[in-house]
Amino acid sequence: MASSPLMAITLLTRAIEYDVIGRKLEALKLYQDGIESLLKESKAETDAQKKRHYQNKIVEYMNRAEQVKELLDRIKNKGVIKDKFHIVDDSTGYDYHRIFNKYLNDSVREILIEEPYVRDHYQICNLVRFCELAVSSCTNLKYVQLMTIKDAKNNDEQGRAFHTLAENLQQHAVKFVIEYSEHMHDRQVILSNGYIVKIGRGLNYFKRSPSNYCLGAFSYNFRKCLETNVDVFYCPENDKS
Amino acid sequence: MASSPLMAITLLTRAIEYDVIGRKLEALKLYQDGIESLLKESKAETDAQKKRHYQNKIVEYMNRAEQVKELLDRIKNKGVIKDKFHIVDDSTGYDYHRIFNKYLNDSVREILIEEPYVRDHYQICNLVRFCELAVSSCTNLKYVQLMTIKDAKNNDEQGRAFHTLAENLQQHAVKFVIEYSEHMHDRQVILSNGYIVKIGRGLNYFKRSPSNYCLGAFSYNFRKCLETNVDVFYCPENDKS
Repeated sequence: MASSPLMAITLLTRAIEYDVIGRKLEALKLYQDGIESLLKESKAETDAQKKRHYQNKIVEYMNRAEQVKELLDRIKNKGVIKDKFHIVDDSTGYDYHRIFNKYLNDSVREILIEEPYVRDHYQICNLVRFCELAVSSCTNLKYVQLMTIKDAKNNDEQGRAFHTLAENLQQHAVKFVIEYSEHMHDRQVILSNGYIVKIGRGLNYFKRSPSNYCLGAFSYNFRKCLETNVDVFYCPENDKS
Repeated sequence: MASSPLMAITLLTRAIEYDVIGRKLEALKLYQDGIESLLKESKAETDAQKKRHYQNKIVEYMNRAEQVKELLDRIKNKGVIKDKFHIVDDSTGYDYHRIFNKYLNDSVREILIEEPYVRDHYQICNLVRFCELAVSSCTNLKYVQLMTIKDAKNNDEQGRAFHTLAENLQQHAVKFVIEYSEHMHDRQVILSNGYIVKIGRGLNYFKRSPSNYCLGAFSYNFRKCLETNVDVFYCPENDKS
C-alpha cells in the first residue's frame, strides 16, 4: 500500500468513525493500517517538530487500538452461554442455516471467523457456503475477517481462492480480510451483534456425500455429520445493534 | 418384474387405494403395471372361463386408468393462472426455493416433473437440487415421477444417476419413477396440491458460476439466470389436501 500523510489520515479518520458506530473489527484493522502508515511517515520525516507530532499521534492511536482490542478480547472470553447442543455422529439436519439462523440477521455488521484449516478445496468451499448464508441473512454486513493458518504448499490455491472470494464479496459491498496466524487454538465465529458460535470442528463437520446424485450432494441439510459440539455465547457488550 | 395373479391383485388393490385418496399419479402407474401383469396371466391361461374373467377385469381396470389419465390431463390444461413473472437475463435471487416455496408444502404428496433434458451432468444435478427442496418442504411427499428424454449416448450416466437418486429417495420414503418419452414439448412441474409451475427453460435456467470460490457456487440464490418466464397455474380439481 502506497503511504502518505493523507492515506494515514484517511485510514485513522475512518477507524474512529467505525469505532464509534460499533464496527469494532474493521476499526481495529483500520487503526493498525493507519498506525503503520503513520510510522512510515514518522521515519521519513526530517523536521523534528513534525516527527514528534507524528510520534504523539502514533501513541494516541495505539492506545485507542489497544482499547478496541481489549474489548474484542473481553467479548471472546466473557459471553454468557445461550445455547448448547451435541451433533451425533452420522446425524443429519445440521446445515449452517440450522446452526446460525437465529443469530445471523440485520443486526450483524461484522463477522470474525477463526478457523485454522481453510486450505483443502472442500474447506474453502465450506467457507464460501458460510459466506453465502451470511450475505443472504445479514443485509447490513460490511466486513468479514478470517483468521486462519497459511497453507505453505498446494501451489497457493488458498491464496487465489481467498482473492477470488474477496473480489466477489466486494461486489456485495462486503470487505473480506485475511489474517494469517500460526498460533491458533479456538474455532469460533464471532458476530458483531454479540453472539459467538463455537463449533468443536469449526465449519468442517460434514461427511462427504456418497454421490453427486444423492440428496445432500448440494444441500448440507441432508449431509451426514461428524460428531461435534456446538456452543453459542452471548456478550451484550458487543451488541450495538 | 415376475408376474403372478397375486402380483396383479396387489398392484391393482393398491392402485384403487391410492386412486381414492388422491395419489393419482402413483395410482395410474399402479393401474398400468397391474393391467400389464393381468394381460400376461390372461395370455398364459388355458381355462376359457378364467381367461374371460381376466379379460373382463382388464377392461374394467383400463376404464378406471383411463379416467385417472383424463383427470390428470384436465389438470394440466385447465388451471387458472395464479402467478406469472419474468426472469431477466443476468438477474439473481431466483433459486428453486424462491420459485416453488409457496407451493411446496405438506399438502404435496406427488410430483410430476416434465423436463425433456436431464442428461448432462449439470442438468441431473439441478434435478437432485429440486428433489432436495421437495423432500425438505413436503413432509408427506410419497412419489416423484420424471418424464424425460432418454439419453442414448454418454455411457448411460443418466441411467446410473437416476438409479442412484431413486435408491436415495427411497431412503426418504419417496418412490422415484422415470418415464421416458420421445415426444415431449411442455416443461412443467405438476404438484398434487393442484399447482403447476411452468418455467420456460424448465429447471435449467441458471448460468454457470465463474468460480467455485464465488457466492453462487453453491447457493443458486446468487446465481445469474438466463432469461425465462415463470407461470404458475392452479387447478383445484387436483387438490385433495
